[in-house]
Amino acid sequence: MRLIDARERTAAIGAPMRNAAIAFDAMSASAVALVTDQGVTGYAFDSIGRYGKGALLRERFFPRLLAAPPDSLLDRHGVIDPPACARAAMANEKPGGHGERPGAVGLIEAAAWDLRAKIERLPLWRSLADYYGTRDAGASIRVYASCGHFRDDRLLADEVARARDAGYACVKIKVAGTLEDRERIVALAGGGPLAIDVNGALAPQIAQRWFAAMAEFRLAWIEEPAPPLDYELTRRYAELTPAPLATGENLFSYDDARNLLRYGGLRRERDLLQFDPLLSYGVAEYVRILELFAGWARRQFLPHAGHLFAAHCVAGLGLGMAEAAPEATLPYGGYWDGVRVQDGCVKIPDLPGVGYEAKANLFALLEHR
Amino acid sequence: MRLIDARERTAAIGAPMRNAAIAFDAMSASAVALVTDQGVTGYAFDSIGRYGKGALLRERFFPRLLAAPPDSLLDRHGVIDPPACARAAMANEKPGGHGERPGAVGLIEAAAWDLRAKIERLPLWRSLADYYGTRDAGASIRVYASCGHFRDDRLLADEVARARDAGYACVKIKVAGTLEDRERIVALAGGGPLAIDVNGALAPQIAQRWFAAMAEFRLAWIEEPAPPLDYELTRRYAELTPAPLATGENLFSYDDARNLLRYGGLRRERDLLQFDPLLSYGVAEYVRILELFAGWARRQFLPHAGHLFAAHCVAGLGLGMAEAAPEATLPYGGYWDGVRVQDGCVKIPDLPGVGYEAKANLFALLEHR
Repeated sequence: MRLIDARERTAAIGAPMRNAAIAFDAMSASAVALVTDQGVTGYAFDSIGRYGKGALLRERFFPRLLAAPPDSLLDRHGVIDPPACARAAMANEKPGGHGERPGAVGLIEAAAWDLRAKIERLPLWRSLADYYGTRDAGASIRVYASCGHFRDDRLLADEVARARDAGYACVKIKVAGTLEDRERIVALAGGGPLAIDVNGALAPQIAQRWFAAMAEFRLAWIEEPAPPLDYELTRRYAELTPAPLATGENLFSYDDARNLLRYGGLRRERDLLQFDPLLSYGVAEYVRILELFAGWARRQFLPHAGHLFAAHCVAGLGLGMAEAAPEATLPYGGYWDGVRVQDGCVKIPDLPGVGYEAKANLFALLEHR
Repeated sequence: MRLIDARERTAAIGAPMRNAAIAFDAMSASAVALVTDQGVTGYAFDSIGRYGKGALLRERFFPRLLAAPPDSLLDRHGVIDPPACARAAMANEKPGGHGERPGAVGLIEAAAWDLRAKIERLPLWRSLADYYGTRDAGASIRVYASCGHFRDDRLLADEVARARDAGYACVKIKVAGTLEDRERIVALAGGGPLAIDVNGALAPQIAQRWFAAMAEFRLAWIEEPAPPLDYELTRRYAELTPAPLATGENLFSYDDARNLLRYGGLRRERDLLQFDPLLSYGVAEYVRILELFAGWARRQFLPHAGHLFAAHCVAGLGLGMAEAAPEATLPYGGYWDGVRVQDGCVKIPDLPGVGYEAKANLFALLEHR
């Protein structure tokens, strides 16, 4: 088997919403297809929030992948080996500088995983579990709903109620990192587990008062109170609150994850890790990170975004929970057509690969229709 | 004044050489031009080693720059303000993930600096010194020659001798981070100050013996013995050698530089910092880094690569030394046509801006001829 084409399409996914750090009006995402000479195609779709990677893919990573000796991309059984695809893409790249590159390479590896699982006629989670020897893998996973981007505050309670009605137990909302956050949360408390995402915006001067104000809510977690690379501030914030902290979605490599572990003061019995395999060179790098966090429970890993691909990673690697945009009319929202969230869980349908073909509005983007 | 166009051309600059980490066969670099409605154009040319950034510039950063209200890009005197250009380019970018993006934004800021200095009819170093209030700025700077990429070892002594003949005092060569390095260095020792660049490749198991073997040479510095983000290993290596260590060229943001300072164990009286303004969001971010390293002498800052632009930064910010590829027939080698290196120093000619127009083979790339 050999790859005969690699394609990318940058999809505009702008939405009139904000978090505490950025606006999403002009947001884009990459849809990737790896085409083989055997009629099977592997797909990948971006995590949302850092723009498409089409140009990097076309300039550097696709040409290297397609120029690699076909056998060098296969495992010893002759099946496509996704980590080998990522390695081929990374030839002659300097160390450090983990920004857009890990997202571009992650997309290639993800599409190769879709391909591998299809060739094996397995759902991706099963293929991943076999490859990495996960013992407690299964099709049912816990999911949470990501809500409350800054649009119109009056709509927030509605949005959260709709997510809970749709079957989500745990819901996450965006907050501003100011003392007004209390009011935003009070209006929602009591309905079920609630997490908040500060997107790095909490000011150190008010941190003590802010964490004290949050104490009344028994939050599921507090996400990114400090900027992603400020490990020292993360460490200090961890000392200010008994609530679980969650972070890592803006660290895109093993090396950065190791620095978070070394310096971030995270608490092994409590805190949560949100590295995103799709934005971070793919599953092979992610598994190295899992191994680095020896002694941490797999359920403490909640990959950021990633949608259907991330759901398979959660199932196939035995992770804690997948993040979902609950709005199924969005290509990157909801799950496979007809699949419902129930009691905060989703059962991945028994389809080969990721199953993009079974979510019509997303597959239309992937197949460039 | 307003910007009417922003252009990028990706130049192939492949060369049959290696360092300890990558090969340069397919290397590329970006040439950027910012065109105004007043007949003056600002230019920037990439640092070498991490590929061109054309696609990112065209997809994200040029459109934002050209869509910004023209007045928002000017200072209170109505002159173009390069840091404001970088801020416009960075609208709606998430924190963290400092990879290709800082290089693309750095190019925009650099071209805006060329523009600003031309409008002021000043050489860039003088414009920078005025903007940032540098007291000991001057046109003469120290430079060193970067040699000894892995090509053919028999040519190395020749290459170094030619650099010294051309007027360079300090010469840097690439080494492999193995115990065979000693032999490579012995053949060159005695001719003048010598630095070595390990490109992160030294294996921890042999580090103690390797540093002991290096002790006989009184090296000017040992560059990147540890991988760029492994601050803990950098700290341990600093304990193993009295030789100055140099690092930082693969850290592309204030946040990453702060982590190096916090955790890298670098020695304030001795070690050298090689952050590259062109790869790291530009001069405004670089000056924030200089301020972060309070108590460190400006002469300890040796910006990586950057060529003519970096030479102006060294002069205008009072830094230690600029790096040069000594081969003037390369667009990114040598200095302005007719300018000679003498006793390890270069005097920047009195031309407006960076003076790209006075290096014919580079200007041909910038003007897309």
